Amino acid sequence: MNRARLADRLDDIETDGYLLDAAQDDANQLYLSGFTGPDPFLTLYVDGSVHLLVSGLEYGRATEEAAADTVERHAEYDYEYGGREERYDMYAAFVRDKGVESVSMPPRAPVGTADAMRDRGIDVAVDGDDALAEVRAVKTADEIDAIREAQRANEAAMRAAESLLADADVAGAGDEPEAGTLLYEGEPLTSERVAEEIEVTLLRHGCALDETIVAGGTQAADPHNRGSGPLRADEAIIVDIFPRSKATKYNGDMTRTFCVGEPSDRLREWYDLTERAFEAALDAIEPGATGADVHAAACEVYEDAGEPTFRTDPDTETGFIHSTGHGIGLDVHELPRLASGGGELEPGHVVTVEPGLYDPAVGGVRIEDLVVVTEDGYENLTEYPISFGV
Amino acid sequence: MNRARLADRLDDIETDGYLLDAAQDDANQLYLSGFTGPDPFLTLYVDGSVHLLVSGLEYGRATEEAAADTVERHAEYDYEYGGREERYDMYAAFVRDKGVESVSMPPRAPVGTADAMRDRGIDVAVDGDDALAEVRAVKTADEIDAIREAQRANEAAMRAAESLLADADVAGAGDEPEAGTLLYEGEPLTSERVAEEIEVTLLRHGCALDETIVAGGTQAADPHNRGSGPLRADEAIIVDIFPRSKATKYNGDMTRTFCVGEPSDRLREWYDLTERAFEAALDAIEPGATGADVHAAACEVYEDAGEPTFRTDPDTETGFIHSTGHGIGLDVHELPRLASGGGELEPGHVVTVEPGLYDPAVGGVRIEDLVVVTEDGYENLTEYPISFGV
Repeated sequence: MNRARLADRLDDIETDGYLLDAAQDDANQLYLSGFTGPDPFLTLYVDGSVHLLVSGLEYGRATEEAAADTVERHAEYDYEYGGREERYDMYAAFVRDKGVESVSMPPRAPVGTADAMRDRGIDVAVDGDDALAEVRAVKTADEIDAIREAQRANEAAMRAAESLLADADVAGAGDEPEAGTLLYEGEPLTSERVAEEIEVTLLRHGCALDETIVAGGTQAADPHNRGSGPLRADEAIIVDIFPRSKATKYNGDMTRTFCVGEPSDRLREWYDLTERAFEAALDAIEPGATGADVHAAACEVYEDAGEPTFRTDPDTETGFIHSTGHGIGLDVHELPRLASGGGELEPGHVVTVEPGLYDPAVGGVRIEDLVVVTEDGYENLTEYPISFGV
Repeated sequence: MNRARLADRLDDIETDGYLLDAAQDDANQLYLSGFTGPDPFLTLYVDGSVHLLVSGLEYGRATEEAAADTVERHAEYDYEYGGREERYDMYAAFVRDKGVESVSMPPRAPVGTADAMRDRGIDVAVDGDDALAEVRAVKTADEIDAIREAQRANEAAMRAAESLLADADVAGAGDEPEAGTLLYEGEPLTSERVAEEIEVTLLRHGCALDETIVAGGTQAADPHNRGSGPLRADEAIIVDIFPRSKATKYNGDMTRTFCVGEPSDRLREWYDLTERAFEAALDAIEPGATGADVHAAACEVYEDAGEPTFRTDPDTETGFIHSTGHGIGLDVHELPRLASGGGELEPGHVVTVEPGLYDPAVGGVRIEDLVVVTEDGYENLTEYPISFGV
């Protein structure tokens, strides 16, 4: 954590303190508290100090683990398994005990807690800028190393997926299953089977993940479709993996699109175009450029080739129908945005670059690497070849 | 989902509608919308109908997947990658479009959205009772089957863990590593190695999980310690697994405590006592009994044996230092609570029963099954033997 940056940013806040009520699955909470509590707990930032309030069950681990100046437990406020209102009374007492009469909370903080503090005379402002998210966007060297390490695990998983595809046979005419279906050890090779191999590989490399995308054919034309059922030859197969290191909690992210057999001319053209859009976006990344500039660079490649984007047609359902990339860290999606309206890039920003084309009549193609913005450009944190054929 | 129960409960709400702003990781959202959107989206319940507002990227999948009466996309409100205020304008327009002037939101709904609706003249009440959580607590037959299936995967993982322990050798005096360390294929058997085996087994059975607990010795004395490093003979090793089915999103939960070698008399006594507390709690489960009654039944076994509980000493850090159990479903921890203040049990409630004893000087012991409350008692959804020795 960049303490100086945090203090700079949070000391700008006009309230006395900055209050979080969340568990470790909230990236702001994990970042500010440094504690992996599984149930919601309070973190209060006041004048450069971080104060935690946790349950007795979590107290021992919190005192060892948290990056906090003080850790208190519920018993210190004479609260034990009481009702909701008693819990809020404790929260208010904790806040006042730190000399705080007004707090800011992030936009996604719980309204129940915010309103309860207001009912108890503590001013609550919503920090619409989500200051902690802005602080988190700029990574320290340690954070970049953590992301790099998650990306190494990601590459191992991508290799495992590509190997399954490379080793697959193709069912012939008149065969069961249907001709063109990929076969692995005699069985149809499914999205689920490839995803399982990815997930097991990631576990063996210290990463967990909720989901992964292995989507072929028309499924690949929906950027958020996770994919299911048998994969087929001559179609584009999108493999998008975003693992989280269990040790550091930082994420990696990478997408490759593969084809077993012979892609159509149109698919081949899409792949080459997407690779050019990808390169154009990378070339645009440097401090001072905006996320909007990088997105524009990718869009222009597609638009010049006559493919629709949201810039040329806000209602389009085919073409380049998402942003060029997003920040990544403790969250898979965080600041900055490489999109229309995306702000200025700074050294230490870690972003995905992932242009793609989608149309149910053709399929889907996406190429994604992860890079860190440096003083004079960017460093690519991804070391995996870009190739359509397997 | 129990639609009748939902309507009964939500139609009691005094506002015009019930509003959610969350992604699929929020159990209320997943339950009410039936949609696995990875980014926050809106769900509005009005007079028995469910309305969704999603981004264009998620629209296709939402229309297919959601249990909604209507699905709209941002473009229908002329919003496209705008700023925060424009986004809230769209949300308010969506709510008003459904004839709604006042909404309830759950306690953990985002304060940014709640305040923004208020600023736009829509009344927002915090539903302190979390009505959806109460509806979710009572499971349908399909939901019970989903939990049962997750528990089957859990049992396979527990078998894998127990096998590693059963197959372990014990380092002798004068050996490297330290005498008493468990060895597997010549290497020290660590918490991490057992956890990996659990996780891989769960993946092979269609489940994902964020974390699992494999904690031995003094680590086991902290109920939330995940465990790390070499495991040892003659110590109690707690294995607590809570997997989530990737297909249904419902969770299982089970804990066993194992000992390789010879436990001390004290540990053996703790194990027997915990098994008795476990049986006493199970015996207390029936419709009309309260969660507090069930918790009391477990506490009494411990208290009669002279072990401290939160009832006899609210400040104790050793003994039985957590509640007896919790509801489980789309969340690992949900209603009802088997704890002081826990309310009345109803048929369809699915709860864990998990008494335990903790003391850094002795270690930790916990036994946990998952049961469903039936018309005349309970059905145990867990089919795994309870045995200290491996």
